[in-house]
Amino acid sequence: MERFDIGIVGLGLIGGSLALGLREAGFAASVTAWDLDPSVLKQGRELGIIDSTASSLADLTGRADIVALCAPTLACEALLLEALRHPGRARCITDVASVKGPLCSAASALDTQLSARYVPGHPIAGSELSGVAASRKDLFQDHRVILSPLENTDSSALTTARLMWETVGAEVQLMSVTEHDAVLAATSHLPHVLAYALVDALAQSPICDDIFRFAAGGFRDFTRIASSNPVMWRDISVANREALLAVIDDFSQHLGQLRSAVDRSDAAVLEDTFSRAKSARDLFAEKLERRGK
Amino acid sequence: MERFDIGIVGLGLIGGSLALGLREAGFAASVTAWDLDPSVLKQGRELGIIDSTASSLADLTGRADIVALCAPTLACEALLLEALRHPGRARCITDVASVKGPLCSAASALDTQLSARYVPGHPIAGSELSGVAASRKDLFQDHRVILSPLENTDSSALTTARLMWETVGAEVQLMSVTEHDAVLAATSHLPHVLAYALVDALAQSPICDDIFRFAAGGFRDFTRIASSNPVMWRDISVANREALLAVIDDFSQHLGQLRSAVDRSDAAVLEDTFSRAKSARDLFAEKLERRGK
Repeated sequence: MERFDIGIVGLGLIGGSLALGLREAGFAASVTAWDLDPSVLKQGRELGIIDSTASSLADLTGRADIVALCAPTLACEALLLEALRHPGRARCITDVASVKGPLCSAASALDTQLSARYVPGHPIAGSELSGVAASRKDLFQDHRVILSPLENTDSSALTTARLMWETVGAEVQLMSVTEHDAVLAATSHLPHVLAYALVDALAQSPICDDIFRFAAGGFRDFTRIASSNPVMWRDISVANREALLAVIDDFSQHLGQLRSAVDRSDAAVLEDTFSRAKSARDLFAEKLERRGK
Repeated sequence: MERFDIGIVGLGLIGGSLALGLREAGFAASVTAWDLDPSVLKQGRELGIIDSTASSLADLTGRADIVALCAPTLACEALLLEALRHPGRARCITDVASVKGPLCSAASALDTQLSARYVPGHPIAGSELSGVAASRKDLFQDHRVILSPLENTDSSALTTARLMWETVGAEVQLMSVTEHDAVLAATSHLPHVLAYALVDALAQSPICDDIFRFAAGGFRDFTRIASSNPVMWRDISVANREALLAVIDDFSQHLGQLRSAVDRSDAAVLEDTFSRAKSARDLFAEKLERRGK
């Protein structure tokens, strides 16, 4: 098996887990990391997650065949442009950002030769934990990774990125940038916004003490994602502005229809809507279970 | 310990579990049930959940000290009025409906002597399963039961209902009818409506196949309650119309504020709101954990 020198930019849960998985599989000849925070680099070395650290992004690209940008969503654009402009040895530059539109637009504005190394990527995996110390070599095992190559993405760069993710056990699927951002807005970004909005509304209610005192397990499950990292979700909401606005509006329209059915006590519309939603949700849960999740 | 003849109206998960728990604890001298569906009565006898069956509501009230109405929400009002008008031997007539306003209004319209036996009740317990065969004697163990006595509810009827619920392991709390319905609208009815609206909106999206294909564990948790019984939730939505409309509107206003922050890329408002919600939700989850849920 061909082995690669791997460069990780931003050493947190995702970057650290990728490093661990690639070393475990023998895919990585070496793993070098660079992070704005020197203490996480030190921690990464002490935990045996990376082999060495770079002193700058240019230093990193000079030492890696594959560069994976695992920094926070809003930091990725500047890092990506710098890496594409000064690719050093890197033949494949990829990322893990939850929103792909802004990165792809920025890369597409470059000379096509420069952007050809870029393979936009998004592993659908995570944990309520974060930070390099939470890294797990099997974080991506049986999870999906969406790759959204640009029109001019080099086919060998795409093959390398695909191989890298398959090596850590992920199932790779291709999807256009626009569809990726729309799908993620619907399945992940909107639910987070709804959960945050619900908890914030209830927390400001005059009867909020009783509300939280009598809420039970169903409410806990429904609001679990409102315990997610506010900074990460702020960035995702800003980055995926257009797709998120579209699903918020679509959702609000459906909620408005239900509200109006409640208002006129229209039992038939309520039952129809609830039944249709239950069927769709049961089917989804069944498929998810078959995939072993 | 004083023992009581118990009458259960509507033999499903809740009625069956109450019967099992009361018999197990020796609180029930006998359990008689009445249900519109004779097959569930047969099943209840065969499973050893009840001792005997009544041929009508009047037959049941003639044989029970305590009558518990465990029928679906919208069926309860007529049953309650009939039971209060013809209470037979029953000294305490209680119910388990998720919405208390309509039942309390109906009972309050009766002669005060007739309504004095009524103790509005609501066990905050359930299961994704339903039906008498799913009954469990410990269903109410360590769960909360809210009692919302009318102004003229007889104190001995209230004491009897409290004792009954404490006997099956529940923690009884008193709350006004209005506050009960507002709290339940916020913590339970609104989340169900939101989950149904979300799944229904996504199921009608042109990219719904990809949406459900790439949705993962977070989405499954968030939408679990959209797999609930559509008829039961139709009835609850109709019965708790006013409180539900109020919380839908309050929620929509908060969602509108977040939408507008996304629209103008107002990172500060997004981060503030998400952080405030995360703090409230973390505090709630911590308290729930301390209660051992």
